[in-house]
Amino acid sequence: MMPQFTDLSRLSLNQITADQLSLRQAVASCVHFGIPAISLWRNKVAETGLHESVNIIRDAGLNVSSLCRGGWFSASAPSERQQRLDDNRRAIEEAAELGTNVLVLVCGPAVDKDLPVARAYVEEAIAALLPFAADHGIRLAIEPLHPMFAGDRSVIVTLQQANLMVQRLAHPYVGVIVDVYHVWWDPDVEAQIANASGHILGFHVSDWLVPTPDMLQGRGMMGDGVIDLRRLRSMVDAAGYAGPIEVEIMNRAFWAMPGDDLLRLMCDRFLACV
Amino acid sequence: MMPQFTDLSRLSLNQITADQLSLRQAVASCVHFGIPAISLWRNKVAETGLHESVNIIRDAGLNVSSLCRGGWFSASAPSERQQRLDDNRRAIEEAAELGTNVLVLVCGPAVDKDLPVARAYVEEAIAALLPFAADHGIRLAIEPLHPMFAGDRSVIVTLQQANLMVQRLAHPYVGVIVDVYHVWWDPDVEAQIANASGHILGFHVSDWLVPTPDMLQGRGMMGDGVIDLRRLRSMVDAAGYAGPIEVEIMNRAFWAMPGDDLLRLMCDRFLACV
Repeated sequence: MMPQFTDLSRLSLNQITADQLSLRQAVASCVHFGIPAISLWRNKVAETGLHESVNIIRDAGLNVSSLCRGGWFSASAPSERQQRLDDNRRAIEEAAELGTNVLVLVCGPAVDKDLPVARAYVEEAIAALLPFAADHGIRLAIEPLHPMFAGDRSVIVTLQQANLMVQRLAHPYVGVIVDVYHVWWDPDVEAQIANASGHILGFHVSDWLVPTPDMLQGRGMMGDGVIDLRRLRSMVDAAGYAGPIEVEIMNRAFWAMPGDDLLRLMCDRFLACV
Repeated sequence: MMPQFTDLSRLSLNQITADQLSLRQAVASCVHFGIPAISLWRNKVAETGLHESVNIIRDAGLNVSSLCRGGWFSASAPSERQQRLDDNRRAIEEAAELGTNVLVLVCGPAVDKDLPVARAYVEEAIAALLPFAADHGIRLAIEPLHPMFAGDRSVIVTLQQANLMVQRLAHPYVGVIVDVYHVWWDPDVEAQIANASGHILGFHVSDWLVPTPDMLQGRGMMGDGVIDLRRLRSMVDAAGYAGPIEVEIMNRAFWAMPGDDLLRLMCDRFLACV
């Protein structure tokens, strides 16, 4: 059993957790609570403006643990595929401007029911982006999503699948995100977290509520669900990951709370449950 | 590419697909449409009475492809575990009375967040039941459920996990159910269906809707979703499975239809899409 954390030095606020806040408000709230890092979303950065966002982050002295999200590669038309690669290059440039070194990829969905083809194309697209990403100092983080998103969001649905892709790509700028919400159910999770050692680019926490109120926006606060969080954290620790731990919770109930109340709860639960 | 079916000889109605019908009504509708087999649910059998159900089925000349469901093993209190084993023994006796040789098992859920312990207990419980099942000529079918049910219904969530359990149990009366809804997302599905060769006890079809209207009761009719059904059927064919193909769809919209309209649609889609 790993000891629990006694401070917030590993904590990062994934910005979607507090989607009711602007980038400026979220940064201010992080500073208020002593949260040292934030993960930004491109739509929120665009709302505020890229250069203004850079200034806000720098003035606050926050670390940026990652930028969400690149990916969304699969498309049947070549012209559309090219557009999506171009958009990923813009995301890489934004990530570099924002001072992070991780771009999170959502790898899907499939076109025309053909999962094997979509999976091959995801790999091809990441391979095409890697030289550009490396030039900008940005690591591409493949985040396997829960299999319930295989139909509309990601054809990468297990950590094993992501690990095998990383092995084949064999490039220092590609790795994986381990998000407890997406991998907790996997009978092979312990072995696959161990296999990810050396290329874990992020660790995301939340909880699985029973019943789940909504597939996309029904994630729980740590401690409110059935995930054995400390067991998963011990696996990630054992794999040598010592970076930021992002709290990423998409839940309309939390978006209806005052931001400071939500962040206070998040800090308390991070210390108690992660 | 496998040829499509030209008749209904492989089709079985899983009774929950037409939950608006009593057992007697469902059987009559199967006879009307020339559906040769039905999978029964214990609650529907209990409503009609076991002996009356046996008579209705025998008089109609239907095959019973399986009985749903045994399982639900995990419980922390020893007395409750014993009660659940006893209930599974009753289910085995009912299955034998009804003239099927397959009892479908739902293997979960976990207690106290501990998936490894729950998984070990599922295996122990199946091992305990197998001699009794064999005495009654009933095969126990482990049905891996979709990982989105790991929190409240089944700790067996992949076909690999079920296959490995079958290998360890090493008993001729244990096998697996391949349900497209539960396994379609799995990057390893082709290899695992091949590994299941010789112990596939059932093949269930439906479809995955995008978006999914409800996690439990939002399954689609074949052809309405994103599952490549014929690819999965070709894998099951290649593994040598030649038994009944059950249509199992839990969806409130279909339960609101007149039963005969639903069964006509089901037969049409079985021929067109499976």
